[in-house]
Amino acid sequence: MTETPSGRVLLAISGYHPQRWLDLFSARRETTLEPDGPNDPSIRYAVVWRHQPNQLKGFPNLKAIFSLGAGVDHIMNDPGLPDVPIVRMVADNLTQYMVEYVVWRVLDHHRQGGLYRAQKQKKIWHEPSQKPANDISVGIMGFGELGAAVAKVLLTLNYKVSGWSRRAKSTPGVTTFHGEDGLAPFLNGTDILVVLLPLTPSTAGIVNYDLLRQLRRRNGLGGAVLINAGRGRLQKDADILKALDDGTLKEATLDVFETEPLPKTSPLWTHSKVFITPHAAATSDPDHLVPSLLAQMEAFERGEPLKNVVDRAAGY
Amino acid sequence: MTETPSGRVLLAISGYHPQRWLDLFSARRETTLEPDGPNDPSIRYAVVWRHQPNQLKGFPNLKAIFSLGAGVDHIMNDPGLPDVPIVRMVADNLTQYMVEYVVWRVLDHHRQGGLYRAQKQKKIWHEPSQKPANDISVGIMGFGELGAAVAKVLLTLNYKVSGWSRRAKSTPGVTTFHGEDGLAPFLNGTDILVVLLPLTPSTAGIVNYDLLRQLRRRNGLGGAVLINAGRGRLQKDADILKALDDGTLKEATLDVFETEPLPKTSPLWTHSKVFITPHAAATSDPDHLVPSLLAQMEAFERGEPLKNVVDRAAGY
Repeated sequence: MTETPSGRVLLAISGYHPQRWLDLFSARRETTLEPDGPNDPSIRYAVVWRHQPNQLKGFPNLKAIFSLGAGVDHIMNDPGLPDVPIVRMVADNLTQYMVEYVVWRVLDHHRQGGLYRAQKQKKIWHEPSQKPANDISVGIMGFGELGAAVAKVLLTLNYKVSGWSRRAKSTPGVTTFHGEDGLAPFLNGTDILVVLLPLTPSTAGIVNYDLLRQLRRRNGLGGAVLINAGRGRLQKDADILKALDDGTLKEATLDVFETEPLPKTSPLWTHSKVFITPHAAATSDPDHLVPSLLAQMEAFERGEPLKNVVDRAAGY
Repeated sequence: MTETPSGRVLLAISGYHPQRWLDLFSARRETTLEPDGPNDPSIRYAVVWRHQPNQLKGFPNLKAIFSLGAGVDHIMNDPGLPDVPIVRMVADNLTQYMVEYVVWRVLDHHRQGGLYRAQKQKKIWHEPSQKPANDISVGIMGFGELGAAVAKVLLTLNYKVSGWSRRAKSTPGVTTFHGEDGLAPFLNGTDILVVLLPLTPSTAGIVNYDLLRQLRRRNGLGGAVLINAGRGRLQKDADILKALDDGTLKEATLDVFETEPLPKTSPLWTHSKVFITPHAAATSDPDHLVPSLLAQMEAFERGEPLKNVVDRAAGY
């Protein structure tokens, strides 16, 4: 017999519907969308996605904040963030969706999906020159759990894979670079750039024109490719457009944008070389994630340490 | 010092330019596009892609026929085919291209590329419901070297994978079916059907309406998907159109067609649910394949047995 755990869960979610999350949490723990006032002593955990600034401060018994995304930039921006552990979402399910997405987009650019779709519109039967995967270098910028999982499948497909991260990392089969000094050589050898960086003050706006022009542009490939499945504020939308229009980039896949939803006025919507998804690379599916969050809370209450706690100094 | 091998290579290629093949073979062996008459005693090997009927008969010293494709239907159709070993092309390079192609197309259908492209045209920011790969069954029809290589990468992406072949086969992680009796249960459990069959008298036209309607159609997936990267005459183009129009199929990727090049009058060109490539899934790249063919000829001349010899009774 397990006793009902005491201490409530506060769901502080904006941007998508909280009902399914509320139903699943409520089946196992007392859960609310609204605290009983700003100093509600019953709140033990906050589960958050783009909460309001200062929404989490003042709860005397708050023990931890759980992010519903792999990134925590939506939490770190809060000037009134309480000093409790912040737990990043690391879930098989999120990782799987992200691997699918990146491998799909790498293949669609490499195997010239855009060209074939354009040829179909004109009923053109023409086989273009095609490089095999082992002649293409995919560079993964932000080489954490997600990057390593993506690299594993890309290697199975025989792509050359490199990774860049803030601190040195090592993975079999992957050429790794790190830090400021490693960035130029990483970019210079990359045909298809995959951005999976966390958004921090030092990465905001890093995907700009100056970075894109350092990518490799080989004759047979028709230019470099950008895939951003990280965060929109890592990139400068206008710089991507400039790079596409002057041939610095051949094509881009963007799952994220400086402003989301992407405004109807953005020229990205109508650009023929851009593939757009609505921040949907990795879906936070409550049916998969809530059991994992509940298990973490229960482990914590048995005295086990929290896993995947954010390093506040690094910002991720 | 190696002596120049005696005996010439006849290149009997139609449908694409033979010059690069001729250059690469000629650098190592005497090679010709035209024999010296119908009984030319100098012809030792024929390297063929869609040769003319009766073009190969009568050469008294012909030792073997090498196919430039993984399939040999283009050879077996010849009523004047001489009784010498026929060698199928099995090359890392061809396999790699085919794996890339099938994995790309599976991901594009599963991750709803068509929907996102349609949404972009209307500037719609909407995240559809999305199943993870481990909830999708990919069925590979024709489970030889290529099918097993495709299955390996699909398993790494966590798809459920099954295979159907004429004779029983077994591969770790793959649910295998075989023969007439195995076809219905194979199809009934398949969401995305990948056709990699050889074209023989018993497989011609097998991808027809009656087969397609046996595929699984689950609510959350919006219908079954067909990917044919085998041979065009395996399928009935008209049946695929009917299945797309009545909802039996959600979408199709076709690399091959009953008539190639696909006639401009075909309604497949303008069908919104069809993705078309011009028999380009796996490119026969002379720079990769000629060294492998030359090595096989040299091994044969050292007395080693030919590899990948076609079973004439089975037709592949």
